[in-house]
Amino acid sequence: MPKTAITPTRAEDYPEWFQQVIRAADLAENSDVRGCMVIKPWGYSLWENMQRVLDGMFKATGHENAYFPLFIPLSFLQKEADHVEGFAKECAVVTHHRLVQTEDGKLVPDRASQLEEPLIVRPTSETIIGAMYAKWVQSYRDLPILINQWANVVRWEMRTRLFLRTAEFLWQEGHTAHATEAEAREETMKMLGVYADFAENWMAMPVIQGEKTAGERFPGAVSTYAIEAMMQDRKALQAGTSHFLGQNFSKAQEIKFQDAGGTLQYAWTTSWGVSTRLVGALVMTHSDDDGLVLPPRLAPRHVVLLPIHRSDEERSQVLPYVESLRKELEAQDFAGGKVRVLVDDRDIRGGEKNWYHVKRGVPLRAEIGPKDIAKNGVFLARRDTGEKAGVDRNEFVATIGRRLTEIQDNLFARARKLREEHTRTIDTLDDFLEFFTPQSKHEDQAEIHGGFALCHFAEGPELDEFLKKHKVTIRCIPLDAPEEAGQCFLTGRPSKQRAVFAKAY
Amino acid sequence: MPKTAITPTRAEDYPEWFQQVIRAADLAENSDVRGCMVIKPWGYSLWENMQRVLDGMFKATGHENAYFPLFIPLSFLQKEADHVEGFAKECAVVTHHRLVQTEDGKLVPDRASQLEEPLIVRPTSETIIGAMYAKWVQSYRDLPILINQWANVVRWEMRTRLFLRTAEFLWQEGHTAHATEAEAREETMKMLGVYADFAENWMAMPVIQGEKTAGERFPGAVSTYAIEAMMQDRKALQAGTSHFLGQNFSKAQEIKFQDAGGTLQYAWTTSWGVSTRLVGALVMTHSDDDGLVLPPRLAPRHVVLLPIHRSDEERSQVLPYVESLRKELEAQDFAGGKVRVLVDDRDIRGGEKNWYHVKRGVPLRAEIGPKDIAKNGVFLARRDTGEKAGVDRNEFVATIGRRLTEIQDNLFARARKLREEHTRTIDTLDDFLEFFTPQSKHEDQAEIHGGFALCHFAEGPELDEFLKKHKVTIRCIPLDAPEEAGQCFLTGRPSKQRAVFAKAY
Repeated sequence: MPKTAITPTRAEDYPEWFQQVIRAADLAENSDVRGCMVIKPWGYSLWENMQRVLDGMFKATGHENAYFPLFIPLSFLQKEADHVEGFAKECAVVTHHRLVQTEDGKLVPDRASQLEEPLIVRPTSETIIGAMYAKWVQSYRDLPILINQWANVVRWEMRTRLFLRTAEFLWQEGHTAHATEAEAREETMKMLGVYADFAENWMAMPVIQGEKTAGERFPGAVSTYAIEAMMQDRKALQAGTSHFLGQNFSKAQEIKFQDAGGTLQYAWTTSWGVSTRLVGALVMTHSDDDGLVLPPRLAPRHVVLLPIHRSDEERSQVLPYVESLRKELEAQDFAGGKVRVLVDDRDIRGGEKNWYHVKRGVPLRAEIGPKDIAKNGVFLARRDTGEKAGVDRNEFVATIGRRLTEIQDNLFARARKLREEHTRTIDTLDDFLEFFTPQSKHEDQAEIHGGFALCHFAEGPELDEFLKKHKVTIRCIPLDAPEEAGQCFLTGRPSKQRAVFAKAY
Repeated sequence: MPKTAITPTRAEDYPEWFQQVIRAADLAENSDVRGCMVIKPWGYSLWENMQRVLDGMFKATGHENAYFPLFIPLSFLQKEADHVEGFAKECAVVTHHRLVQTEDGKLVPDRASQLEEPLIVRPTSETIIGAMYAKWVQSYRDLPILINQWANVVRWEMRTRLFLRTAEFLWQEGHTAHATEAEAREETMKMLGVYADFAENWMAMPVIQGEKTAGERFPGAVSTYAIEAMMQDRKALQAGTSHFLGQNFSKAQEIKFQDAGGTLQYAWTTSWGVSTRLVGALVMTHSDDDGLVLPPRLAPRHVVLLPIHRSDEERSQVLPYVESLRKELEAQDFAGGKVRVLVDDRDIRGGEKNWYHVKRGVPLRAEIGPKDIAKNGVFLARRDTGEKAGVDRNEFVATIGRRLTEIQDNLFARARKLREEHTRTIDTLDDFLEFFTPQSKHEDQAEIHGGFALCHFAEGPELDEFLKKHKVTIRCIPLDAPEEAGQCFLTGRPSKQRAVFAKAY
């Protein structure tokens, strides 16, 4: 077997491979604060690119950004009963507002500074934002409110994993209020569509848009919709959610307005969000046993130029050539911006330097030495396929956008193929169990799982218990699932639609 | 006196005028959480523009963004003694990580979830970031580290004021580590220069760059530099700081590296930051008794088009004209981007609509009705000067960039003139006292203060006590202050430079 840059490989130990890819690409690392990660420049730059694109999409659909407090008074959480049940459990609780030094010089919370009402570091902001909306909305003329917030949130997770589940994470949360149910429902679906568009066309990650079953709904929501993606271990990852909250929150929070006829009504609200979890999803969708593979449209750099020289004389020949090539490339358009070029002229071994950029997932690497210059060319390597070839310089500049688009398209096609290959329509309990049972001891150890099973189902305690036992979850009922009569694969009870079942992150 | 949109006026009650300008412009409001503000879309958009420009400047000077944890373990704060003394006092302390419901359904912190070590919500991140740098730095090859973070921070303030002093605020904090003192000092001054450039060329706010005296230094810093601006009440506002931290933090945090000769050395570090306080500074520098005045380069919208029509027929004539004008304007360049246009066709009274945009500070307002269209023109109003005139449509489009630049320049010149008029060179105690004594009962009530006094001084308890009594502070020793022999205005002790004295925010 060829040596790989990442040990272990995906086939050997998928969860550990994921950690090692992040480490090798220098995306993030654990901090000294339990469950909190440090997002390093290469990882943060990826998140910035995601933010910029999503922010543009939110603004294009009529939303504005605002900022609400980090803290939520305990009593606010209490207002919506289901929300309390689902959320107000594991969270960071602020109880004091001052430190004092003891006689031996130690810092301790000052008992005299205990807060009358503890504050919660926001796990999500429906309650604190809703309290403001209640003040802002009096008349139907004040609606709709279409606001998004980019923020950090904290959920005290016991078992954390970089990007996928951390105590603190970064996200955006949209919170909208509408005069009618129809408008709020339309908003919910519109933002689900924005997320799917972003996942597929920017992250090159195919997703299934669907509705969550009752058991998987956001606490307090009437309907929760999500985009679900298949990772390379065939587990599902929920990559974004959009909630239709009905009047549940507006009633708890008194978001009321006079309609055109003068009648007092409760507003209809929605919320929707994606987080730094998307970075984890991107890593697990495209990376390989040599490390990170980045979809070009979101890559911090599209191409790295690697000057090769063995003497000062060669250096003085190569560097100006590389510099002028950089300028030409940077003048080319790609994905609504310019081509992003990095020149790496660090004084380290060529092999080490090359692998450095392989592991960080740069879509194209171009080596340029005296021999290449003699041919007016570059030696080009493609990260996704590993293809390498000499290319004429002018052709390289002229085709850079097309090459990047090809990589983007290839990544999407590859991910979709994986999903298609591991999606089954399943009708019997035996087939279901077989699908989710590792086919070899090898797969078991590597934690490679069955995939997506499309099954008829009937919600109830029997199904819940069965799924819990087998660690399988209902991901969603796809929006495009046809209505068809069927029977629950477990209980035989009647069903009219199939849902996606999978192991999940 | 003409009626003003803001009550009270600056001359009547400056602090209250400030609150009312923010309210009338819909920039922000207080939340239900003590000391925390909600930044509303118009205010947040202004902050986003500031962020975008500053972020570009940071990147152009070689910095990258990253993200570090919100929480700081108590023991981390303890490491740098001066830092503890200055910072670890009024802050939000997290002591529990779970809530439970009591029998009567109330949520309370779960006693079983008490943290072994309390966590502090970051008031600033030197300690938590330094702990990571200590891991990242081994060799001189790992230096410099040039990282910036955009984040929220919390300082438990007892008396808060929107944008100027809030418990939670948004900011950026740059943290760099270098192999040599000279390089770290160069970085400190470079970033001070970036802040001054931003303040003057984007916010149109003249600033004095200077060094803080020992008493006003950042806790733990060797030298603190700041940009200081004069508000319209002639008080000083510190708008950005850049700290040379020497090896104080690197010694406390063990940020060590092997130099080229193999010797173990401590790194030299810096930190620098600006915050949402800049929004408050911008408001107080330019606004007038009719509300917010925005410098065009940072304005969320440069021009608002106000269609005027009294019938459906007029409307169908006016709207297409306005729409085509909008497109033409949006194709024009200004300040490194395109002209940002808003069309306000809401069905409210024309006067009300006009004042709405006056109070929000939109630099140019263009009314367009059938009469204007007949002349192929618009009726243009300039926010900063109040000038109004009919302008030919094509000329308007062709000159939009120049008009906005004129407004930008005028705001800067106006603010500089105010500062010049209220800056005095003062050598005697009598003159000093007179300068800071309100000249009339009127000024006293309005809280209008003397201005900037350039005085010789000698630090010491006597001066400290005097300044404290008169609520005057030493703002900074200007970088361009000439060395000249003199005597402290209070003690007569020898002095070799003048500092800026002022009342301050």
